[in-house]
Amino acid sequence: MSLAAFQAEHLPLVEAELLHFLTEQTSEKELLEAMSYSVKAGGKRIRPLFLLAVVAGFHHELTTGVYQTAAALEMIHTYSLIHDDLPAMDDDDLRRGKPTNHVVYGEGLAILAGDGLLTEAFHLLSRAQLNGEEKLLLLQLLAEKAGAKGMVAGQVADIKGEGQQLDLAALAGIHQRKTGDLLTFALVAGGILACQTPAVLTTLEVFSHHVGLAFQIRDDLLDVLATTEELGKTAGQDAEAGKNTYPALLGVTGAKAALDRELTGAKAQLAILAEEYNFAPELLQELLAKFEM
Amino acid sequence: MSLAAFQAEHLPLVEAELLHFLTEQTSEKELLEAMSYSVKAGGKRIRPLFLLAVVAGFHHELTTGVYQTAAALEMIHTYSLIHDDLPAMDDDDLRRGKPTNHVVYGEGLAILAGDGLLTEAFHLLSRAQLNGEEKLLLLQLLAEKAGAKGMVAGQVADIKGEGQQLDLAALAGIHQRKTGDLLTFALVAGGILACQTPAVLTTLEVFSHHVGLAFQIRDDLLDVLATTEELGKTAGQDAEAGKNTYPALLGVTGAKAALDRELTGAKAQLAILAEEYNFAPELLQELLAKFEM
Repeated sequence: MSLAAFQAEHLPLVEAELLHFLTEQTSEKELLEAMSYSVKAGGKRIRPLFLLAVVAGFHHELTTGVYQTAAALEMIHTYSLIHDDLPAMDDDDLRRGKPTNHVVYGEGLAILAGDGLLTEAFHLLSRAQLNGEEKLLLLQLLAEKAGAKGMVAGQVADIKGEGQQLDLAALAGIHQRKTGDLLTFALVAGGILACQTPAVLTTLEVFSHHVGLAFQIRDDLLDVLATTEELGKTAGQDAEAGKNTYPALLGVTGAKAALDRELTGAKAQLAILAEEYNFAPELLQELLAKFEM
Repeated sequence: MSLAAFQAEHLPLVEAELLHFLTEQTSEKELLEAMSYSVKAGGKRIRPLFLLAVVAGFHHELTTGVYQTAAALEMIHTYSLIHDDLPAMDDDDLRRGKPTNHVVYGEGLAILAGDGLLTEAFHLLSRAQLNGEEKLLLLQLLAEKAGAKGMVAGQVADIKGEGQQLDLAALAGIHQRKTGDLLTFALVAGGILACQTPAVLTTLEVFSHHVGLAFQIRDDLLDVLATTEELGKTAGQDAEAGKNTYPALLGVTGAKAALDRELTGAKAQLAILAEEYNFAPELLQELLAKFEM
């Protein structure tokens, strides 16, 4: 099955689980509206897609519990976007071509919509149709990757680093936590849901580190190279905000080379999974191809 | 054992679990500082205290897992205070006699400190020294009570209701979710940790509804009657902000009568627990006595 067909078949089921749960679990109309607005704002669902592609690659059934785990992950990602866009943080007015949450609903409700999505992500996962042991493992991993040494720490480090000259290692450390850790969850959770061994989970984690960095380098490059219209958010903002980016540190050519290196590293891990663990790599290969520039 | 002795013996162990976990799980110094600042800001730890008093009242051991559950609850409470105090919300500069989190650390870091505490609360609970079944039950309950039909919804309804004239039922509906639901968690979690039956958990829930309302009415009354110095936060702010409060709706005398009614209701549930379920009610009785005005 092609990636496009896979996406078309499975991503709507993730979104359905997500919106069904939110609708059922929210007692204030405005809160539901604000949360749903950002959920529906047309993201690429790259994290759920990685998770599902791993589960499917191991020839494991895409159960309701799998969709629910992917939905919880997307809720965490969505909350982080809402909070990151706030005036006190990145102060973004546009996201995916639409006004950001606080522009539409005001800052107070935007903060609460983020808090609601974050809390309901753990709620959904805690009630997912999975066995108890699996659920606890996934809850621990999600909280770790989204928490104070994961995504939240990455955002703190990012804010702190603004206007300072960082070296490559410091920049990578920020991105691994800020965007990489949720990708790591996506890939490792896929392995957990497909009942894989610790050795496989480790390979998936190494794979995710390459993908996470590739993702961020590409994002930085797009901010430099694309127009606002193509990007769906205001272009050229990173440089304006004095942000540390790969193109700023390495130049555009250097950043493209770094991107290639990470993609090559990712493919090497994928080859191990395919050769040693009966993993069907086609979907992930197609996904990686989209990162090339 | 008196309440004072009980507190002095057990609350430090809750705080120790909390700070130990945060320190271990945070990779950015500033983030740890901002989170710890609000945790240490000298709250009364009323929620952990209720939880521990229930467990002890059922003659059940106060294990590490019990302290960890109480710590997770206090982390959720602390995050909610940080976010509620933000300029986009209640815009409070003082809390417990100290500058609020965003006054000290800036809005961006305050939002992230809240996000970190919220996420790490679920993290701590998911790794607590409890059996798996108990943990999942507690995780589900905590997420439900803190989430989009619980505390977060209550805060949305509170913001929405500002400047509008609400009736008593609407006001109670806001407070049940905004402050009552976490108290409900405290009391029902105590019952779960003490291995009690569904019938007992229901009694604890009814008890918690009375206590939650009493707590809020008392808080409203204090805002009218106390000075800023006595209160540790700016007094008279509710009226200024056009907030719906019990004294505004019922007058001071009426609000005091409502407080008495809720305390009487709470005592009735406590009597049931003592008579029918071998519960030692002394600690909770002493706690309730503190609510009287």
